[in-house]
Amino acid sequence: MGIVLGPNRYGKAEVRLVRVARHADRHEIKDLNVSVSLAGDLAGTHLTGDNSAVLPTDTQKNTVYALAHRYGVGEIEEFALLLARHFVDSRPPITHARVGIDEYAWRRLGGHSFQRCGAEVRTAVAHHGAGGAHVVSGLRDLVLLNTTGSEFRGFAVDGYTTLPETRDRILATAVTARWRHARADGDWAQSHAEARRHLVAAFTGTHSLSLQQTLYAMGSRVLEHRPELCEVRLALPNRHHFAVDLTPFGMANEGEVFFAADRPYGLIEGTVRRDGAPDPGPAWE
Amino acid sequence: MGIVLGPNRYGKAEVRLVRVARHADRHEIKDLNVSVSLAGDLAGTHLTGDNSAVLPTDTQKNTVYALAHRYGVGEIEEFALLLARHFVDSRPPITHARVGIDEYAWRRLGGHSFQRCGAEVRTAVAHHGAGGAHVVSGLRDLVLLNTTGSEFRGFAVDGYTTLPETRDRILATAVTARWRHARADGDWAQSHAEARRHLVAAFTGTHSLSLQQTLYAMGSRVLEHRPELCEVRLALPNRHHFAVDLTPFGMANEGEVFFAADRPYGLIEGTVRRDGAPDPGPAWE
Amino acid sequence: MGIVLGPNRYGKAEVRLVRVARHADRHEIKDLNVSVSLAGDLAGTHLTGDNSAVLPTDTQKNTVYALAHRYGVGEIEEFALLLARHFVDSRPPITHARVGIDEYAWRRLGGHSFQRCGAEVRTAVAHHGAGGAHVVSGLRDLVLLNTTGSEFRGFAVDGYTTLPETRDRILATAVTARWRHARADGDWAQSHAEARRHLVAAFTGTHSLSLQQTLYAMGSRVLEHRPELCEVRLALPNRHHFAVDLTPFGMANEGEVFFAADRPYGLIEGTVRRDGAPDPGPAWE
Amino acid sequence: MGIVLGPNRYGKAEVRLVRVARHADRHEIKDLNVSVSLAGDLAGTHLTGDNSAVLPTDTQKNTVYALAHRYGVGEIEEFALLLARHFVDSRPPITHARVGIDEYAWRRLGGHSFQRCGAEVRTAVAHHGAGGAHVVSGLRDLVLLNTTGSEFRGFAVDGYTTLPETRDRILATAVTARWRHARADGDWAQSHAEARRHLVAAFTGTHSLSLQQTLYAMGSRVLEHRPELCEVRLALPNRHHFAVDLTPFGMANEGEVFFAADRPYGLIEGTVRRDGAPDPGPAWE
Repeated sequence: MGIVLGPNRYGKAEVRLVRVARHADRHEIKDLNVSVSLAGDLAGTHLTGDNSAVLPTDTQKNTVYALAHRYGVGEIEEFALLLARHFVDSRPPITHARVGIDEYAWRRLGGHSFQRCGAEVRTAVAHHGAGGAHVVSGLRDLVLLNTTGSEFRGFAVDGYTTLPETRDRILATAVTARWRHARADGDWAQSHAEARRHLVAAFTGTHSLSLQQTLYAMGSRVLEHRPELCEVRLALPNRHHFAVDLTPFGMANEGEVFFAADRPYGLIEGTVRRDGAPDPGPAWE
Repeated sequence: MGIVLGPNRYGKAEVRLVRVARHADRHEIKDLNVSVSLAGDLAGTHLTGDNSAVLPTDTQKNTVYALAHRYGVGEIEEFALLLARHFVDSRPPITHARVGIDEYAWRRLGGHSFQRCGAEVRTAVAHHGAGGAHVVSGLRDLVLLNTTGSEFRGFAVDGYTTLPETRDRILATAVTARWRHARADGDWAQSHAEARRHLVAAFTGTHSLSLQQTLYAMGSRVLEHRPELCEVRLALPNRHHFAVDLTPFGMANEGEVFFAADRPYGLIEGTVRRDGAPDPGPAWE
Repeated sequence: MGIVLGPNRYGKAEVRLVRVARHADRHEIKDLNVSVSLAGDLAGTHLTGDNSAVLPTDTQKNTVYALAHRYGVGEIEEFALLLARHFVDSRPPITHARVGIDEYAWRRLGGHSFQRCGAEVRTAVAHHGAGGAHVVSGLRDLVLLNTTGSEFRGFAVDGYTTLPETRDRILATAVTARWRHARADGDWAQSHAEARRHLVAAFTGTHSLSLQQTLYAMGSRVLEHRPELCEVRLALPNRHHFAVDLTPFGMANEGEVFFAADRPYGLIEGTVRRDGAPDPGPAWE
Repeated sequence: MGIVLGPNRYGKAEVRLVRVARHADRHEIKDLNVSVSLAGDLAGTHLTGDNSAVLPTDTQKNTVYALAHRYGVGEIEEFALLLARHFVDSRPPITHARVGIDEYAWRRLGGHSFQRCGAEVRTAVAHHGAGGAHVVSGLRDLVLLNTTGSEFRGFAVDGYTTLPETRDRILATAVTARWRHARADGDWAQSHAEARRHLVAAFTGTHSLSLQQTLYAMGSRVLEHRPELCEVRLALPNRHHFAVDLTPFGMANEGEVFFAADRPYGLIEGTVRRDGAPDPGPAWE
């Protein structure tokens, strides 16, 4: 049996771009981390080192900066689509482009002064290729915590089970959420703000019997309110907060003193989708 | 259109296990990071908070430790399979288990003394479910560098290209490699050692015209020599080392002084597979 | 010449404590990382393994949790002092305690729901020993950026200088600031909020001729407004944002498109103090 | 009371330098991370923005690369001294320079091929100023583990103590060690290799009654064997490995199955010095 080249792609990862728009009275800032991956007729470089179809990753980096200058940077979904289309449309051997962008948020302190806010990152991935364009928006490192309103009972028990049931625990997680758009256009800013708002509202508003239940509540609430979206994928680490046993010291710890553990952690992953959603194609890759 | 639960799984991630085998004359040590993910009939917990099918992730953690005690820990592929089979075979609602294990290497310094060696991590992922068992072995953070024997010329040029051609550059990467076994058994230790050896030999032995060429050389060499393997996936970041321009100081820098850059970096991803390889099923998930 | 034991200390580091205060209508949360270091008559354990003076670090951890339960957690300076005094006062061989606390901020989303906000960490270090008590408050990872209002000109030039002068650059830094209290009491909350406010105001309000000038403006402004403080220490990495050269593409980049670099970075460190400030003793250790 | 500028310094941090020596038959490689800090008559830039005494940090970076080209890079202590002397001797306002260098190790795989080895970092700090030159060598992230030969008994007990005594535990640490040279010259390579060898030998060879005892054994052994050194400072985190309680599953865990914990951790810090050692001056800063 022969040995063959399978799926492959290449590009420049983590191009750190800060774009300033200098208005007369105040400046605007966009702080992005852009990663490009191109695919197409690239067997030559793999098999023989023929690079004639290879647009250097250095050129891809230059292109990110040049297009940011020429067109400005609006919503990251739009800029990702612009870049993806540029590479496919301008380079015949390139038949597919994936552009992923992370956006870091800054809070305004003055006309030209800013404070970086939070660990939360807004994300977007755009694909452009033979099957058209696909956009997945999202966020990560949104850390949420409820001090009560979370139970975990009635679970399966086997010979290795020692966990007691609880009717009141801390529930904390760092949300990674991605949601797929049915079409590659729309009001990206509003869509993101609203999807995020519904995720948070579902987390805080759900009396949780399991983190799985909270996950489904988060995903389904987004789909119920945002018709432009057709699928939500969530990864929710269960950041365990263990009530410290203070009985050796004559104290009753009634949900007041907790040890925030690092590892191990529970990890709940799930998809919520609209029945009859269009085929995702490469959207999640 | 209705909203439905899609694919989902849950488990305990990053269970840090150190297993000591206490022989009379010397101790052996295995240092692992184990992550379990279970899937099956879990709609209840998502939709209504009915946890009757949910084996707690705390129990999964206990199971990792208990089975490590009962059976010892040999090769990580074997231990991953043991755990995956345990969960599927003992819990009827669980129809599929994925167990991923990272192994950290230690060098012996004495009968019971060890030094942690290197950042390189050996990896294994085992799946067990309706379609049988699948095993993917691998490694990550194997950092390799050639000071010469690497060119990059003849590439595509467009209006954003400023990169000059080079006949001599440093080529450096941190290898992430995974290889799929055609069958879920074998001599795991030898297979890993040999696959790793061939990856390294291909990197050091290839006069590289592109990192893509090196990638294909690495993957194909593994398949040529290891009939038990049917597919190799590689992700090779191009850790750029830029020759510093010393001409302002009257110096000619002939490949002697380099700036090791952090970001951005090139990223080459590719698959090499055996023609007619068996269907991967969920092996890569 | 003999070999002798010099200064030494030991303790439990990074005790992750989350303290919930459960009021009828809403919960409050404190999220801390507590590190204890004890010193005193500890030669025995070093020289002979006589541990009779060694209070286990595990006990120190228990004490953090128990005192958090008994007394609650108010401002971190107060809790650090409480812990430091406890160890010195209750353990005769222990003559000096250092307690460092990092506090992570959460934003309220509801009666018992919270969102972790930002990377910025509030810090406090308390010492208690023969010389009395000392308190240093501070913060770190406060990331600030001005898109204009920063110059760098008139600097020294030698044979290795290639940097052009600039009248307009981005100035960005991640502030690490610590300020020493003249006395170990006060309104810790107000003092912290005001010191922080003045640091930010000086950064945003200074037309900067050098990051050193900004540093001095930040430190001196805090001392001018806060009589309870006698010394400020600042470490300001210069997070370089380089304007990308777009002239090869026929574009003039007038302060609009920047590359945010990782390494290397400038690092400016300095102390601003009040003339005649009391002796710091071990405050900064 | 007036407000005054106290101690200050500035420089370029984390200059990533890879130096290749291209011999006819094989290449040598040095992989360094260099940080420069300069001090002197720098009040002007702080107080008024007068930068005439400020050699740009960009120039410092250039200097690192240029001197690496001109003189090559031998032992890091020597290269740090070379740089420190260059800045003080060539720039009159600069009266003191501190140069810190981290060195990453590579293992040879061929004439021009290398594999990065380990997380362990070799370190050196050189000071040059009015008081002459000072050198501190060291290492960090050397991770050592004994599976037996470690006890912890006879410790102090109070009302918050729950830790049982143990006659057999895992002892693991990530060594950070620094050692001061009595003079700023010598055979740096041999001195480092031997100091490191003695640290490891003391860790593995000591039947430990406490990590403090091990720390003192490590430091004193270095001083006993290396007359060129006069002081050793060690920071040893106690990387706890807790034996997992398997009794609920009917298993006796006799030192075979451990949970490797992340946080909190014990932290033992101590100095061992030669009686009558010369004054350290700024060596440790």
